[in-house]
Amino acid sequence: MRAEILTIGDELCRGEIIDTNSAYLASRLWDLDITVRWMTSCNDLEADIVTALSEAVSRADLVVCSGGLGPTEDDLTVDVAARLGGVDVAIDEPSRRRLEERFAAARAAVTPIQLRQVRVPAGARVHGNPAGLAPCFELPIDGVPVICLPGFPREIQGIVEQSLDRRFAELREAHGAVERIARRIYRAFGRGESQLSQACRGLIPEGTAGPRATIHYQVKFPEILIKLVVRDRDLEAAHRQLAQLDADLRERLGPVLYGTGEETLVERVARRLIDAGATVATAESCTGGMLGELLTRVPGSSRAYIGGGIAYCNEEKVRQLGVRRETLDAHGAVSEETVAEMARGALERFGTQLAVSISGVAGPDGGTPDKPVGTVWIGLARRREGASEPARSTRKLLWPGSRDQIRTLAAWWALAMIDAALPAQDPAEEARSRWVLGEPGPRTGAP
Amino acid sequence: MRAEILTIGDELCRGEIIDTNSAYLASRLWDLDITVRWMTSCNDLEADIVTALSEAVSRADLVVCSGGLGPTEDDLTVDVAARLGGVDVAIDEPSRRRLEERFAAARAAVTPIQLRQVRVPAGARVHGNPAGLAPCFELPIDGVPVICLPGFPREIQGIVEQSLDRRFAELREAHGAVERIARRIYRAFGRGESQLSQACRGLIPEGTAGPRATIHYQVKFPEILIKLVVRDRDLEAAHRQLAQLDADLRERLGPVLYGTGEETLVERVARRLIDAGATVATAESCTGGMLGELLTRVPGSSRAYIGGGIAYCNEEKVRQLGVRRETLDAHGAVSEETVAEMARGALERFGTQLAVSISGVAGPDGGTPDKPVGTVWIGLARRREGASEPARSTRKLLWPGSRDQIRTLAAWWALAMIDAALPAQDPAEEARSRWVLGEPGPRTGAP
Repeated sequence: MRAEILTIGDELCRGEIIDTNSAYLASRLWDLDITVRWMTSCNDLEADIVTALSEAVSRADLVVCSGGLGPTEDDLTVDVAARLGGVDVAIDEPSRRRLEERFAAARAAVTPIQLRQVRVPAGARVHGNPAGLAPCFELPIDGVPVICLPGFPREIQGIVEQSLDRRFAELREAHGAVERIARRIYRAFGRGESQLSQACRGLIPEGTAGPRATIHYQVKFPEILIKLVVRDRDLEAAHRQLAQLDADLRERLGPVLYGTGEETLVERVARRLIDAGATVATAESCTGGMLGELLTRVPGSSRAYIGGGIAYCNEEKVRQLGVRRETLDAHGAVSEETVAEMARGALERFGTQLAVSISGVAGPDGGTPDKPVGTVWIGLARRREGASEPARSTRKLLWPGSRDQIRTLAAWWALAMIDAALPAQDPAEEARSRWVLGEPGPRTGAP
Repeated sequence: MRAEILTIGDELCRGEIIDTNSAYLASRLWDLDITVRWMTSCNDLEADIVTALSEAVSRADLVVCSGGLGPTEDDLTVDVAARLGGVDVAIDEPSRRRLEERFAAARAAVTPIQLRQVRVPAGARVHGNPAGLAPCFELPIDGVPVICLPGFPREIQGIVEQSLDRRFAELREAHGAVERIARRIYRAFGRGESQLSQACRGLIPEGTAGPRATIHYQVKFPEILIKLVVRDRDLEAAHRQLAQLDADLRERLGPVLYGTGEETLVERVARRLIDAGATVATAESCTGGMLGELLTRVPGSSRAYIGGGIAYCNEEKVRQLGVRRETLDAHGAVSEETVAEMARGALERFGTQLAVSISGVAGPDGGTPDKPVGTVWIGLARRREGASEPARSTRKLLWPGSRDQIRTLAAWWALAMIDAALPAQDPAEEARSRWVLGEPGPRTGAP
């Protein structure tokens, strides 16, 4: 099944906003085995929208449009779609009632111009818009289903999750796709795409009978998503094949995998900290607060995150965190000894169960032959039941990226070390923890 | 002059990466008065690239392509462009020599596959690629100039800045554009797009003779860029008109404007801190380190930024920053009194000339009728020559956005307050400082 995505708006063609909607929609369609052949953006010009839509329905089996559903005179998508579909334009009554209720609640009057955004082509299938006012609708043009969405990413995501994902799958089947799909998204952190794809070479045997499987990598720096998709006429056979591949994939990637599905490492760490009732503090130098910012992105993080010290200069490492001046003199600010004392100092002063520290050379200047740009040390200190001394782990990174990349990677490794310090739920998590913390133990090999 | 942008790559059509190149190129073209009519993305399929390129040259006066110039068999742009241009494919010798030098420096052998990326259509004009290996080239197809760029944003930016900006302008003139362009980008922070556009209503008189001027707004949350463009056959007349509009625009927007050109507020603050030889510390609650992260994004910021305290819980506001428990009990963590004590405490403990503090309700939960989600207090303390007490400023924000937006806006207002605390260079900067710090004085009105 071939799909085409059309995004409409002058602001796109003037480069004033980056079109994130096309990639979002393409990714959802790809996950459903619907191939996007073309993605087009055009201005809010009636003639251009007519051209773009006509061309799309002439060569695709499904067309998804975004933009041009608002209340202003520039918003022409409903009119063009109705004209090409050979129907009139009508008010969608449920959407009108919602709009009137919203306006009444805000004590505002509904003007005729506002009603423009609840119009749809007559007879169109309406999908609703949980996060906005303009309804999503679908109508056939020359026999090809055309689905029109508003332009706001948040509204599009709400509509896709609420109804379109299911509808896309239905349309695919209606189009005669006999294969069903089993799929899983794996999340990896700690190795690059080339190492992961190398480790997965041969995972999917070529040219054999049985379910058809594919693997794809999506880099969302600094993490990598691995998408495993199995297609078969028999959904159960596809799931069985996926389960086999799943075991093999986990074996090959080992501790680099930290999760599956939609949960990011940031969300995972916040959730696990809260679940474990653990508290954490941060001690940052080169990242300047980035780790604290990541930990506090998630609502509710105040149940686990107490605070942190940003010690951008050496004097602050001494004053705020109790790093000894001799340590700084002997080993420098970017050293295993310094991050160990930073983490230990944060643990004691903030009174938390865990503390992480970061010190590195983020560049572009400041590198030396010994400690080139990209050298980062990360320290972790954690209290142990019944022990007088906290446990200590350290890790060195050396990755010569841009300043921003070096800082981001450092903050994420610190997150991974917090994650690894929390109680493991199963042997795989245990192995991952050992690998992240650099501890000896069984089955810790990463690609 | 109508342009068309074509981006090529399977990873785009699978939604694995967001296409930022099209918006970047469209924005550069728009600044030169070249209108982008279509932006298209297609897969790495020869037939589709042929279709897309043929269609583009049939309806545009300039085509800019990105992607498909790498060394692998998937990279087909050179071959398709040469075929449509009716020429052979040839090695670009200067690019080959550069590639060989690079490989020799890395002690690597140049394989035949590597040479694929220094091929160009025979006779094409080569624009060079300062940040990469694959040359940018330009050749006419059916009389329309087609410029092909690699897919990496960093390489594209290097090529555009080094040579294409000038080339686009030349092509525009060669196309018969008789108007020359004078333009300026203004940077505003502190008011929304609708308030700015309201304030600028009538700035450009409609339907009069003389140079043709336009104004556009680009939201890069939380700042807004205002682009003023004047076109005239006579470049001097355009510049005179721009100077007049400039004075009017500055009058209308007043203290909301903080700069012109490419320098962001983050870069401006870092530069001015270093220039003034000033030192600063941060004390953050709801932003969790975001302000420190912003201040340390700029290389060299360690000359001004000493460090900060992230006091996510009340106890840490007391311990790290010396906030009095009575203040917290009487006024709460999100209050003018608390941020004033946080800033004062940071100033003393970090020993800096300036300190800023942030405490707010970032949501989505935690709001009360008194302090709804979006309530943020920001405090600033600065040492004064000869005074025993530091000067103090505070500011309240109330903007009910998402958690991320509230935190970002708060961190940026804190940056604006640091900026305002530095010595003003002229009366406009003085007025802006007074407005940001909420001090009485002449001409402080913002839209």
